[in-house]
Amino acid sequence: MDISPEIIGYLAATLTTGSFLPQAVKTIKTRETHALSLGMYSMFAAGVFFWLIYGIYLSNKAIIIANAITFVLAALILGFKLYNTWRGKE
Amino acid sequence: MDISPEIIGYLAATLTTGSFLPQAVKTIKTRETHALSLGMYSMFAAGVFFWLIYGIYLSNKAIIIANAITFVLAALILGFKLYNTWRGKE
Repeated sequence: MDISPEIIGYLAATLTTGSFLPQAVKTIKTRETHALSLGMYSMFAAGVFFWLIYGIYLSNKAIIIANAITFVLAALILGFKLYNTWRGKE
Repeated sequence: MDISPEIIGYLAATLTTGSFLPQAVKTIKTRETHALSLGMYSMFAAGVFFWLIYGIYLSNKAIIIANAITFVLAALILGFKLYNTWRGKE
């Protein structure tokens, strides 16, 4: 049996993005962000954004898809965090 | 000014691995793992492992370095989680 190496990329993408999803969806639903560090989360969101740019440069679909999904969720969560911080809720 | 696209990869790697580091180091020091979900963390560690394999296949240093560091830390944390679960500590 011959496994395409691209499958490894899609498997990796599904696992890392999948492991991030439940917590992200929960945070988006509850808008509870007090447990998140603004500094660390900003760093994470910026990092995912640069992986996305790098994936586009490499024309690598697995990297683009994984980081596009993660970036949208991370940016939403960061938005709630900033809003909560600005409103003085935490 | 000409920016090498590889710089984007290293920047991405530094930001995502860097954002994971403080929490990982804290968990490794305290060995407190009750807040982690065994399922989600296993999925994350497996995903990072496959990104590492995929990076080796692509011969891409930024992907290899980022995921090698993250995998070592994630595997250590997963080990503590499994040990604590097995010992019935949580």
